[in-house]
Amino acid sequence: MSTPKRVFNFNPGPAALPLEVLQEAQEELLNFRGTGMSVMEISHRSKEFENVIQTAEADLRELLGIPTNYKVMFLQGGASLQFAMLAMNLRPAGASADYVVTGTWSKTAFKEASKLGTTHAAANMEAEGFKDLPAKLDLDPKAAYLHFTSNETIHGVEFPAEPRAPDGVPLVCDASSDFISRPIDVSKYALIYAGAQKNAGPAGVVIVIARDDILEKVPANLPVMLDYKALAASGSLHNTPPCYSIYITGLVFKWAKRMGGLQAIQKRNQTKAAMVYKTIDDSGGFYRGHAVPAARSIMNIPFRLPAVELEEAFASESKKADLIGLKGHRSVGGMRASLYNALGVDAAEALTGFMRDFQQKHG
Amino acid sequence: MSTPKRVFNFNPGPAALPLEVLQEAQEELLNFRGTGMSVMEISHRSKEFENVIQTAEADLRELLGIPTNYKVMFLQGGASLQFAMLAMNLRPAGASADYVVTGTWSKTAFKEASKLGTTHAAANMEAEGFKDLPAKLDLDPKAAYLHFTSNETIHGVEFPAEPRAPDGVPLVCDASSDFISRPIDVSKYALIYAGAQKNAGPAGVVIVIARDDILEKVPANLPVMLDYKALAASGSLHNTPPCYSIYITGLVFKWAKRMGGLQAIQKRNQTKAAMVYKTIDDSGGFYRGHAVPAARSIMNIPFRLPAVELEEAFASESKKADLIGLKGHRSVGGMRASLYNALGVDAAEALTGFMRDFQQKHG
Repeated sequence: MSTPKRVFNFNPGPAALPLEVLQEAQEELLNFRGTGMSVMEISHRSKEFENVIQTAEADLRELLGIPTNYKVMFLQGGASLQFAMLAMNLRPAGASADYVVTGTWSKTAFKEASKLGTTHAAANMEAEGFKDLPAKLDLDPKAAYLHFTSNETIHGVEFPAEPRAPDGVPLVCDASSDFISRPIDVSKYALIYAGAQKNAGPAGVVIVIARDDILEKVPANLPVMLDYKALAASGSLHNTPPCYSIYITGLVFKWAKRMGGLQAIQKRNQTKAAMVYKTIDDSGGFYRGHAVPAARSIMNIPFRLPAVELEEAFASESKKADLIGLKGHRSVGGMRASLYNALGVDAAEALTGFMRDFQQKHG
Repeated sequence: MSTPKRVFNFNPGPAALPLEVLQEAQEELLNFRGTGMSVMEISHRSKEFENVIQTAEADLRELLGIPTNYKVMFLQGGASLQFAMLAMNLRPAGASADYVVTGTWSKTAFKEASKLGTTHAAANMEAEGFKDLPAKLDLDPKAAYLHFTSNETIHGVEFPAEPRAPDGVPLVCDASSDFISRPIDVSKYALIYAGAQKNAGPAGVVIVIARDDILEKVPANLPVMLDYKALAASGSLHNTPPCYSIYITGLVFKWAKRMGGLQAIQKRNQTKAAMVYKTIDDSGGFYRGHAVPAARSIMNIPFRLPAVELEEAFASESKKADLIGLKGHRSVGGMRASLYNALGVDAAEALTGFMRDFQQKHG
């Protein structure tokens, strides 16, 4: 096959995947490692697929340094189903859960948990337009858990480090949009969940990392597909898992290891984000970032231009220049550059070059 | 790329996909229809993906003749999550639901529904070893719904036509393993669900077809990812759907149309199954089918041999002959041939030829 056209892909998710991963998937799409079948056609109980899922887990454990007293699950329904599942599994009847609300996604997580029981906002930054992290938290020392969203994809607000939960309160994190973008200390968390379709793979699989003691407290008689304990005990194979998404995710983990692991990846991500933020800060107010500098995300950079007409021009001209996915979310407006792991420094160079040219032309 | 090795794939699911579908997916894996991105990398809100999901729905509506007062959803979690969701959505507090138990899958559906409310077996064929369909049903005229499993993948028992529910009782069907294998009259059903990974596509997507009046009765305040009404209203796009699985499923629907639609597909499926059943029936008792003739499945054919040692030899020799996936489920034992849509008559010829040779050698 001829070399296909490829673009710079700033989509917020589903998002860019490493070219090497796609090439490997393409190469073996009709005949997976000599089986004479596509990986989509093999049984999830076969030794070939067992190898796929076990290798993906082992590589993720190595990348993130996941301690042995945590289970890793590859589930379905995205982070949005986790919003309900974690409340069903981790909040006993009558107990309350604490939520730090810093953007659209933590607000939605709060709302879903509220349908199922008592939910308390330890902070809510909505009145300030979700531009900053909370200066302090109103924490319930008896909370069933403390939930936060490490990176808000829409508002571009990211925690530089996890908040501290009161002693004995399990810390729960929606890490969907900065998962494996940087090293974290997993031992500080009781449960981490992340939709794969940002840094880790295609849509269709959500990764859940859960500490063993949390699983022991899961209430009896939950529907099995909503029961962390049962799903972990089955090794994510209670029913047919999303095999192809897990396979691609496994190829991404291998790629991340080849890239030097999460410290190297974090450094590259910081370089890319710094280039874009510098272009914003050097623009004399032509470009305005949404988040305050101390809360700026390394992954998603929403920014505005002086007028809606200019934002429309930016969207259409950047698309013509093969810079894809830069239109912002309707709730923030303007533009958004998502700079996930798969994007190289060349993408940040192309974007910042375009931004400077655009300002010169229209500023 | 050179022509890859391919085998005859009798896997029960995930299962064989049409070669044309895999080739098309391979061809455009790095550059989906000129976007410069993989279909895995494009936004689920893009016009390109909207076209993918809307075309998949339109083709499925055409194939199955789905009336306009039904919604089609592409969801996650497999049929196993549907076991819980349908009870949450369709059975009001205090009401009872009727289940026809004809094999492992309907038994599991019954069990999951029992966790959430009152569940009544309109028939239970387990004492007879799940070899036959019930002669009569003990139906509750006030049931919230009547549930049946049109084809039992493990036991190879298939309803030739749907059971009749009492007037006003919605009919609900798990059609996972015979979905789009034959024409059905959708207007007889209130809700049909089917995991894609048998006839319709890869794992990771479950198709739900629901009549509008059923959706109007969904209780308020369900978690959104478990709420049929909300999911249907969003066009399966409340959150990021399993994009790649939906894309492949759409290619399979196009292929099914090219094959002549469901009547032509049914005819081919009947031909394949008849060849295998004839080989069983002509074997003088060497091969013994699990299901009684009147309940025989066109999709899954479990059969035993005179001794476990012979079954082990059959499994290993057939695998060496590139006939894959013939080992039966542990609960029935012996062998199982799954003859889903993607398999041609050549696969049934290869299998029956092998069966005759094996009997000659070992019989």
